[in-house]
Amino acid sequence: MTLFHVLDILGIISFAISGSLVAMRKKLDPFGVFIIAFATSVGGGTLRDVLIGAKPVFWMKNTEVIFLIIASYFFAIIFRKKLKYLNKSLFLFDTIGLGLYTIMGTEIGLNYNFHPIVIISIATMSASFGGVIRDILCNEIPVIFRKEIYATACVFGSITFLILHHFNVNESIIYASTSFIIISIRLVAVRFHLSLPTFYTKK
Amino acid sequence: MTLFHVLDILGIISFAISGSLVAMRKKLDPFGVFIIAFATSVGGGTLRDVLIGAKPVFWMKNTEVIFLIIASYFFAIIFRKKLKYLNKSLFLFDTIGLGLYTIMGTEIGLNYNFHPIVIISIATMSASFGGVIRDILCNEIPVIFRKEIYATACVFGSITFLILHHFNVNESIIYASTSFIIISIRLVAVRFHLSLPTFYTKK
Amino acid sequence: MTLFHVLDILGIISFAISGSLVAMRKKLDPFGVFIIAFATSVGGGTLRDVLIGAKPVFWMKNTEVIFLIIASYFFAIIFRKKLKYLNKSLFLFDTIGLGLYTIMGTEIGLNYNFHPIVIISIATMSASFGGVIRDILCNEIPVIFRKEIYATACVFGSITFLILHHFNVNESIIYASTSFIIISIRLVAVRFHLSLPTFYTKK
Repeated sequence: MTLFHVLDILGIISFAISGSLVAMRKKLDPFGVFIIAFATSVGGGTLRDVLIGAKPVFWMKNTEVIFLIIASYFFAIIFRKKLKYLNKSLFLFDTIGLGLYTIMGTEIGLNYNFHPIVIISIATMSASFGGVIRDILCNEIPVIFRKEIYATACVFGSITFLILHHFNVNESIIYASTSFIIISIRLVAVRFHLSLPTFYTKK
Repeated sequence: MTLFHVLDILGIISFAISGSLVAMRKKLDPFGVFIIAFATSVGGGTLRDVLIGAKPVFWMKNTEVIFLIIASYFFAIIFRKKLKYLNKSLFLFDTIGLGLYTIMGTEIGLNYNFHPIVIISIATMSASFGGVIRDILCNEIPVIFRKEIYATACVFGSITFLILHHFNVNESIIYASTSFIIISIRLVAVRFHLSLPTFYTKK
Repeated sequence: MTLFHVLDILGIISFAISGSLVAMRKKLDPFGVFIIAFATSVGGGTLRDVLIGAKPVFWMKNTEVIFLIIASYFFAIIFRKKLKYLNKSLFLFDTIGLGLYTIMGTEIGLNYNFHPIVIISIATMSASFGGVIRDILCNEIPVIFRKEIYATACVFGSITFLILHHFNVNESIIYASTSFIIISIRLVAVRFHLSLPTFYTKK
């Protein structure tokens, strides 16, 4: 079991727990909560696989993912009252997941020999669209469109990966640097409540 | 024309009528009503085909489906005032459709040699996601996430199918048993207003 | 550079600007505005490619599209206050885009030898679903389901294309006629505030 694999599992768990919590706040029934947990966890990667044309989508080949989500779902339900104290660990897991999915998305894009701008798009979607789907299913404007620097961190992470890869840097250093960039941007953004500046059209 | 084919047609018709009625209640224009009818009817199977990688999606190869939806759409528009008396027949058709799409989804999953948990997911999506897409397009939280046992019936139906299939039970008995389980669960749930219990996080 | 190519570029630009403007009105952050611009511009064609099974989706092979969207996005942000005077040109571009995407969708459908009703569906989706996705992401009922004749114009355009194609009419005449039909329907509809008649179910 590699470090990559451990991080992958942590990412899936964390996204599944985050989806369950949001769905419970919306007072959905247990089936609805499960669907939201599932969609949050695999949504980004599923969209990636569908757009690339990888078939079938990853979680149909790797069922471990489904069992991890089921376990995380029960965990979130059982410990739903305690989880408010876990906010910090959740944020950490979520950020780790974000970093990892960006790395995975970038690697997959490189394997397909896509143009860098396409690879960055794929990596960002892999990492952040689970949350977008979660919010659409809950009938809200996706939170990443409104608050805090989130997907932006993936964009910079993926660019870092591509630059280092271009110069043939060792793979483990690429992984570490990409994760470091993403985690740092997220930590700084949340710590100082940084958002992207907005502009709006007067009516 | 087999019984399977008859049920398939009834399922498509019933989902198309249910979509048309919901869209008319939302006061959409005729084009919008048609899109909702179409999405409700083929949405679940389309998602299934896209995720599995079956190309093109089923209704592009089998255009009979499109003409059935068009006919159901006009039927729903013309008889929109009478259809309130048809609620019971609609509920029946809808439940038949649910049973049938679960059977079809399970069979397709078996043909692809997926893991049982993946097959159950595919079957449940085939049967219930048309309604989810309908509700998202109408800007509502999907009703199956909130009320009554619906997708849960598909899960139990698909499990029944897989168990009987494992023991090499005759196909027509598998079909009948799966349908029986799904229809019974739905009837009991609606008759006694059963929902899954909910839990929610205190703010 | 052919006329077809010029129109293609104008269509992408116009849809990207329209998406940016809607997202800014919703006060999304810059990343959200970009995603909406992107989804509005490529959403219809992406859905088309995913349903047909063309892989990967068109903008992963043709990155020019992504750079055009990025440029349009910055244009829309910089000139957001002036763009209210541009409404008419935008409407024109949008209508040109509508015509062009209908033509492209119809051609792609013909190449796949689909049934005419499937080709018309594909063409209409290519042209109009970018706007549907834009509205879903912004948490609104898609505007094309409610106001003015929009997708209906695509349906008639695609039918015109297929009829002329059936009689082996010269390609450039088919393009011109299809565009003419679509643009005329849109202009007349908007000029006289024509909508499809609605009907609704009394509660």
